[in-house]
Amino acid sequence: MAVYTHLSAEKLGELIHAYDVGDLISAKGIAEGVSNSNWLIETTRDRYILTMYETRLDLKDLPYFLGLLDHLAAKGSPVPRTIHDREGAAYRMLDGKAVALIEFMSGVSIGTPEPQQARAVGAALAGLHKDSADFEPSRDNTMGLSAWRELLEDCGRQGLASIDPTLPDLVSEKLSFLDDNWPRQLPQSVIHADLFPDNVLMRGNEVSGLIDFYFACNDTTVYDLAVTHAAWCFDDDDQFQPDIAAALLEGYSSQRPLSAAEYDALPVLGQGAAMRFLSTRAYDWLNTPADAMVTRKDPMAFARRLNFYAETGSAAFPGCKVQS
Amino acid sequence: MAVYTHLSAEKLGELIHAYDVGDLISAKGIAEGVSNSNWLIETTRDRYILTMYETRLDLKDLPYFLGLLDHLAAKGSPVPRTIHDREGAAYRMLDGKAVALIEFMSGVSIGTPEPQQARAVGAALAGLHKDSADFEPSRDNTMGLSAWRELLEDCGRQGLASIDPTLPDLVSEKLSFLDDNWPRQLPQSVIHADLFPDNVLMRGNEVSGLIDFYFACNDTTVYDLAVTHAAWCFDDDDQFQPDIAAALLEGYSSQRPLSAAEYDALPVLGQGAAMRFLSTRAYDWLNTPADAMVTRKDPMAFARRLNFYAETGSAAFPGCKVQS
Repeated sequence: MAVYTHLSAEKLGELIHAYDVGDLISAKGIAEGVSNSNWLIETTRDRYILTMYETRLDLKDLPYFLGLLDHLAAKGSPVPRTIHDREGAAYRMLDGKAVALIEFMSGVSIGTPEPQQARAVGAALAGLHKDSADFEPSRDNTMGLSAWRELLEDCGRQGLASIDPTLPDLVSEKLSFLDDNWPRQLPQSVIHADLFPDNVLMRGNEVSGLIDFYFACNDTTVYDLAVTHAAWCFDDDDQFQPDIAAALLEGYSSQRPLSAAEYDALPVLGQGAAMRFLSTRAYDWLNTPADAMVTRKDPMAFARRLNFYAETGSAAFPGCKVQS
Repeated sequence: MAVYTHLSAEKLGELIHAYDVGDLISAKGIAEGVSNSNWLIETTRDRYILTMYETRLDLKDLPYFLGLLDHLAAKGSPVPRTIHDREGAAYRMLDGKAVALIEFMSGVSIGTPEPQQARAVGAALAGLHKDSADFEPSRDNTMGLSAWRELLEDCGRQGLASIDPTLPDLVSEKLSFLDDNWPRQLPQSVIHADLFPDNVLMRGNEVSGLIDFYFACNDTTVYDLAVTHAAWCFDDDDQFQPDIAAALLEGYSSQRPLSAAEYDALPVLGQGAAMRFLSTRAYDWLNTPADAMVTRKDPMAFARRLNFYAETGSAAFPGCKVQS
């Protein structure tokens, strides 16, 4: 959540003229994105988000991310289109950094969802999975099991223990469990892989936009549902919200019924989803200076989810329509 | 430049309903303001800036700042109106912090001004001075001479020397000089006191908005012109730009000709303006952790301006119309 780079009005105006979008009227740096800078741009034609890719992002992945947006938008998924420049390019280089102009989507991110909203999010996620079926490019999940292990090994037992004394054992036990039990034969597709409430724009009970596809990749389809479940179905005190879960799963499975194998895998996938965010949060917790102006997110929120999924099993996934 | 506080969509929606401005459609935290959080808000009616006052701001000053906006906007100055809530209040309390809803103004902040733009800024500043003549509330300048001295004494000779070896002597010499020579009999009015390019929105060569009035106060009118001169008439290498200065001063004095006494005071006021920003930059330089995600601004840019004004005298202020 930052604007890392200053762009002068002159430079912005010049950049905007590389696109057929009218003249620059207004530009505001916005506090979104963790590895890029974003501006809300208004021109005489419309509004756009300008994204400058700062760190972490591998430039070779950009055509995948931007092409995916175009593919999904064309299919009718509520995702922002990439605006191409006058030469047809999806991104340009500016001062050595890649920049892309993306459609602005209205809507607000919900803090505490209502069931109807969770249902709409589930349906939108299923839509994304279906609409991307014929998207040809592919990208490996760089935030899968081996990445979690690497991040957590980097934290070290001592580092993890400094967060919470129970964490080193939990992590080593569960990493082994996930390695041994990870479902590797389930259907794969494009997944969003990070569909937290921050990345969903809503107007009332409708999803107006799915955004921030910079973890999107090809991986187990229902793992994305497990990530979304872990992201949406717990309140601020980490208490499971069965009504939200049921609505999310109903919404998803109404559009894309799960196979029995997919349904049976959800408790393990839920533990994987929890481990994924536990790993990055623990790493960031130990590697963010305490006085940096960034809010560190509590890794233990996902340690608790990890235990919850292990203990609760399929009961954490009510309301799911399963193909007979 | 920050968003310090997280506001959920639910809380924002509720807040917006305290105003007669339609329903919330979109809200983006924007990277503006150093002591407050700002959101660009879109409703079914219009767009607004929501400001939450975080630190530094004395709540008793808020009616002055917000009342001034309303006064100036009513007179036709290009400043944003305050939106009052359904009970007529200019600000509300939210989680113990004051928040105000302010008109959104289009336009972009210029990095390197053209003379025509500087002329428009000068004219807008004169307009602000004239339009505020009958604004009754008054507020002392809390960033005047005694504040500069306090900040710089807090830095200490050693601290200042760590920035630049010439700084301790320059500061002590010039603080005495300003104390002895400060013009105390010139006309006073409301002044903006911080009219840097960041705080001016432009569309082409026209000023579309003057913003960020949180240093506004009642003080020597042409000191504001000196501040604006120090803020606009030097390039990125701190080189004086005589064509920009001439245009700024022409623009200003075409709307509000200076008295001979005002004109003669400009070289001293310019040194004062340079000292004002030198003092806060030096203080922030020494008191900002090096790894904080904030860009520290070089205090020496204003040490150089201070020397420039002392050496150049009235020649730094070309193009000024003086009452005969």
